[in-house]
Amino acid sequence: MKKLRVGVAGLGRLGRVHAANLAFRIPNAELTAACTVTGTGVDYAKDELGVQDVYTDYRRMLAEADIDAVAIVTASADHCEQIGLALDAGKHVFCEKPMGVDLAQCKRAEAAVERHPGQTFMLGFMRRYDKSYAYAKQKIDAGAIGVPYLVKCTAMDPASAAADFIRYAKAGGSGGIFLDLGIHDMDLMRWYLGSEATEAHAMGATFRHPEFRQAGDDETGVVTYRFANGAMGMMHIGRIGPHGYHVETEIVGTEGIIRISAVPEKNLAQLYNTNGVCTECVQSFQERFADAYLAEMEEFVSCALGGRQPGVSVYDGTRSTQMGFAAVESWRTGGIVKIG
Amino acid sequence: MKKLRVGVAGLGRLGRVHAANLAFRIPNAELTAACTVTGTGVDYAKDELGVQDVYTDYRRMLAEADIDAVAIVTASADHCEQIGLALDAGKHVFCEKPMGVDLAQCKRAEAAVERHPGQTFMLGFMRRYDKSYAYAKQKIDAGAIGVPYLVKCTAMDPASAAADFIRYAKAGGSGGIFLDLGIHDMDLMRWYLGSEATEAHAMGATFRHPEFRQAGDDETGVVTYRFANGAMGMMHIGRIGPHGYHVETEIVGTEGIIRISAVPEKNLAQLYNTNGVCTECVQSFQERFADAYLAEMEEFVSCALGGRQPGVSVYDGTRSTQMGFAAVESWRTGGIVKIG
Amino acid sequence: MKKLRVGVAGLGRLGRVHAANLAFRIPNAELTAACTVTGTGVDYAKDELGVQDVYTDYRRMLAEADIDAVAIVTASADHCEQIGLALDAGKHVFCEKPMGVDLAQCKRAEAAVERHPGQTFMLGFMRRYDKSYAYAKQKIDAGAIGVPYLVKCTAMDPASAAADFIRYAKAGGSGGIFLDLGIHDMDLMRWYLGSEATEAHAMGATFRHPEFRQAGDDETGVVTYRFANGAMGMMHIGRIGPHGYHVETEIVGTEGIIRISAVPEKNLAQLYNTNGVCTECVQSFQERFADAYLAEMEEFVSCALGGRQPGVSVYDGTRSTQMGFAAVESWRTGGIVKIG
Amino acid sequence: MKKLRVGVAGLGRLGRVHAANLAFRIPNAELTAACTVTGTGVDYAKDELGVQDVYTDYRRMLAEADIDAVAIVTASADHCEQIGLALDAGKHVFCEKPMGVDLAQCKRAEAAVERHPGQTFMLGFMRRYDKSYAYAKQKIDAGAIGVPYLVKCTAMDPASAAADFIRYAKAGGSGGIFLDLGIHDMDLMRWYLGSEATEAHAMGATFRHPEFRQAGDDETGVVTYRFANGAMGMMHIGRIGPHGYHVETEIVGTEGIIRISAVPEKNLAQLYNTNGVCTECVQSFQERFADAYLAEMEEFVSCALGGRQPGVSVYDGTRSTQMGFAAVESWRTGGIVKIG
Repeated sequence: MKKLRVGVAGLGRLGRVHAANLAFRIPNAELTAACTVTGTGVDYAKDELGVQDVYTDYRRMLAEADIDAVAIVTASADHCEQIGLALDAGKHVFCEKPMGVDLAQCKRAEAAVERHPGQTFMLGFMRRYDKSYAYAKQKIDAGAIGVPYLVKCTAMDPASAAADFIRYAKAGGSGGIFLDLGIHDMDLMRWYLGSEATEAHAMGATFRHPEFRQAGDDETGVVTYRFANGAMGMMHIGRIGPHGYHVETEIVGTEGIIRISAVPEKNLAQLYNTNGVCTECVQSFQERFADAYLAEMEEFVSCALGGRQPGVSVYDGTRSTQMGFAAVESWRTGGIVKIG
Repeated sequence: MKKLRVGVAGLGRLGRVHAANLAFRIPNAELTAACTVTGTGVDYAKDELGVQDVYTDYRRMLAEADIDAVAIVTASADHCEQIGLALDAGKHVFCEKPMGVDLAQCKRAEAAVERHPGQTFMLGFMRRYDKSYAYAKQKIDAGAIGVPYLVKCTAMDPASAAADFIRYAKAGGSGGIFLDLGIHDMDLMRWYLGSEATEAHAMGATFRHPEFRQAGDDETGVVTYRFANGAMGMMHIGRIGPHGYHVETEIVGTEGIIRISAVPEKNLAQLYNTNGVCTECVQSFQERFADAYLAEMEEFVSCALGGRQPGVSVYDGTRSTQMGFAAVESWRTGGIVKIG
Repeated sequence: MKKLRVGVAGLGRLGRVHAANLAFRIPNAELTAACTVTGTGVDYAKDELGVQDVYTDYRRMLAEADIDAVAIVTASADHCEQIGLALDAGKHVFCEKPMGVDLAQCKRAEAAVERHPGQTFMLGFMRRYDKSYAYAKQKIDAGAIGVPYLVKCTAMDPASAAADFIRYAKAGGSGGIFLDLGIHDMDLMRWYLGSEATEAHAMGATFRHPEFRQAGDDETGVVTYRFANGAMGMMHIGRIGPHGYHVETEIVGTEGIIRISAVPEKNLAQLYNTNGVCTECVQSFQERFADAYLAEMEEFVSCALGGRQPGVSVYDGTRSTQMGFAAVESWRTGGIVKIG
Repeated sequence: MKKLRVGVAGLGRLGRVHAANLAFRIPNAELTAACTVTGTGVDYAKDELGVQDVYTDYRRMLAEADIDAVAIVTASADHCEQIGLALDAGKHVFCEKPMGVDLAQCKRAEAAVERHPGQTFMLGFMRRYDKSYAYAKQKIDAGAIGVPYLVKCTAMDPASAAADFIRYAKAGGSGGIFLDLGIHDMDLMRWYLGSEATEAHAMGATFRHPEFRQAGDDETGVVTYRFANGAMGMMHIGRIGPHGYHVETEIVGTEGIIRISAVPEKNLAQLYNTNGVCTECVQSFQERFADAYLAEMEEFVSCALGGRQPGVSVYDGTRSTQMGFAAVESWRTGGIVKIG
């Protein structure tokens, strides 16, 4: 069995998810190197992942490690440069979302990908690989809902994690709630509608934690998009989900509707007690999308070994980012913003 | 518009439900008389129902009141005699369940009905008129689930009402949990399966309120039935529903299954909070079946005015009672009991 | 028992619902007169409602009929004038929504109500009297979801009725999808948020029936609202609900969320078959809101007899209409529209 | 990292699931040997699992392979002997359910386990490791439903697989529907109730495929159990689930109820179309319990490496088998059967 040798760059929370999947759960992948700038990252790589070839310098890993591919899970601002370096070094590249923090970066990533058409590039829009989202896409492509003309998205981080997100907002660099939390939904709208957004209108509100506003961000955001083919998108994103991590998506078509996860159930159990009939909910994106993180990496490995490109391209990264910036600008100015 | 003039016998909790429906919600019915043995009943009839012709003697109401029909909502032990008296007096008869408290009584009621084939007799198995149960029957008759071969029933009174039911059990005369609470499910099994029960096996348990056992009854009952056509029935009845009044029925067929009220929702609202996603539940049979009580009475009035017999016959009363007594005997003896 | 004598004006589809409720289901109301301009209306009044005092002239009914109150269920354009006439004639007034078709009319209705503070005026925003919506309001007032800051509304007419709505749109006078279909949701947003809308942004789309566009209307509408207290509203309205009549409302608060009718179930039965587990859906607003139409009329009668004003005032009519016109203007111009 | 070296015995459908989990998804396990009697099994081991050390003789694998443990996924009739041989050879043992096909075998397995208390033995009751079932157990142990006194189980194989099960029944050796399909539910009843069954009453029916009866088995079975502590169990098992593979379990306690998988959803998507609102269902136990198969094997590996015994003991195998035989005897004789 041919195996893809992968080096992971970044061993933060999400980096460890990807690294563990590559090391232990994907038969035709091998995690042969890691790059991390923290001591705990080095220990984790050696003790938990069994990777001995650990770097603190990304360029050195590219130059010296025994790898066919890299998985980039570093700070968002570094993604695009690291994409270019890896591709130029002849490696296949998996990059966590968002692709970049400004459009110029994204364009440089596009150029790098275009320079190396024979290498696999994949962006980590893992929701497309979640079995519910993939099922919806398959149904839609098979005509189950006719022509999709409206996508309605909800994404709420759990209220219990608000302190983390306030810290995150204060630290800056996340791009704010529209880019950070909304980017997956922007990609999904494009994917399901098969069209590009042309116009955005956004609003925000903060009712519980004034710290979000103080940090120049917002607790809740509402965006509507118009698409080139006349379709529309509605989005509600927020930081204070009372019941947990709530990601719900509804694709409305001329012949049917598919709704995903109206109840973000933790598992299949329901408790009947004095509160009524209750379903406990998932509490984090890691819990909700654990299988999707594995499935997307399996696809990346399969593409890289088979000389294929995955469904998510570098342009998906650029265009979702454009939708995100348009939302931010509309939210700031109070006006309607044209895209592209 | 021809109107049916009805006299109600009994103005307890359920008697008032029927009386108010007859008085105010059924266009072609008129509540012209009432019989009640309590002073509060008399006041209620005059002040709330606007009925001035009030009796304390059932025979006198039959003899003197300006009525075409009676609705019998008295103590169970009196039903069968009152059925006979009313039919012999030329009145149409609606009788609340259970029809009688022993088989001899039921047989006398059958004889009375047979003596007066031109008069309408209806037994208050109101679940058959609930829109969900009626929909299930219609679907089944249309072949939606193939041949039904198993009916699974659950009926739990709310834990909050346990003290009432303990008092009720101590008072005797209810017939115990199998007859009192299970009788509707016994009727439904027969109705949906289109066959009669031939064998019963029952067990009981008391885990929370020893008073049920002390009163010679049980807190929870489990019964399985075999039917003449080979079909089967499973029943779970109990007094301590933690979430409220739970009546759930499942009809299993060779091509499909219909399940009614797996979540006994109070209304269509769901609360998303730290308990997860919760649906509050109904708390009493009056709340759950308010519409069914109205619909069955509408059907009775329509039958009586139109010279028809309703779907529920006097024999349904007898046979369900037989199923109930078989369950009680099995529960007492620990053995399997043949029916009929 | 004191009874309110009511005359109904208009015996179209909805007029008959109100008339039948008044005639047969509300103990302390009496339908003593009717006004209708069609022959079938006259027959219906006499034969089905048992009303002999039937008029073809609204002013004559006000002048001659033995009535304390009128229920106005005529064409929308006539509502406001008829409100004024009835109030000036000393009658209590129930008026079906929408109150008027322009703001000037609404202001005249306000003036009429203000001239007669001792008479009851109620606008037919019946959803407030639906048990699920009323439960939500009660829960919110009791603090169950903290501070509500976002209301998300969906209202889809059934695809099976699209031909009717196309005819309706072509006929003009409905005010278009935003005013006709969205007005209830506009009222609900104000009611749950306790604040007035200050800004609207609307878009529309037609993907299945070009006739909607040809008639100067749209098949689907999307609106976002900003409210004075900083809260927000999102609305999706449409004419081609694939599964039936879908009205769903979600109130998002700082401590919890209440969602009403994510599955617009026809009843409590679920069918397990080769399609999976399916819940059949309601097919019309009459089916979904039958109980609410009764409950609102009970409240009107109770208010009129008791000298009270109901929760829905004449100003609710004006303000919802303003929200509707702002949506229409935004949809037409593509811009953001300020309200009030 | 210390790794457990495991040899798998049996590479049928389920053997391959276990083998792939051991080979690719459990970091601290290594699949170093396999035993299979078919040529396709040998190819699968070498090509798909990357195992070169392949045997056709179980005893030779025990004697020669570089293994610490064996995973037994062979024919049920061979399990108990193979358990004894492996334990006596000093290996840890994982054995797929059912443990044996008669009680004498089970007793010999018990003796083997007792001879080697220092080695890990685990029986494959994987449902206990399913996240929903494990969550329920945890909630119950934490007191969430008070004292559990009734467990209600449903297990239906999909109608689409009936031909396979008819062939299986004709081939004999499955032990029939009660033992083959019901054994997991029997184990769950004991686990959740914390008590042993003392009495069984069973019935069966065949309404669609007479072949089941012809093969001396039944299409559907219904069993009720009494437990030593007074609790009760109800079970419905069948071969013609119209919507797919349906495993549902309800644990009824004095303070609450937990119900698992009333809708055996395939994923989180719901389709709104002319059938209503539909959830597609899982179609096989492999699909439903894929994660549980992995989780139980992770636990086995962890126990074997850590010198621990898992929650499922050899006695769980014996006692569930006793419950199964009691059901079969009751079904055959029509009487009530005492256990133990």
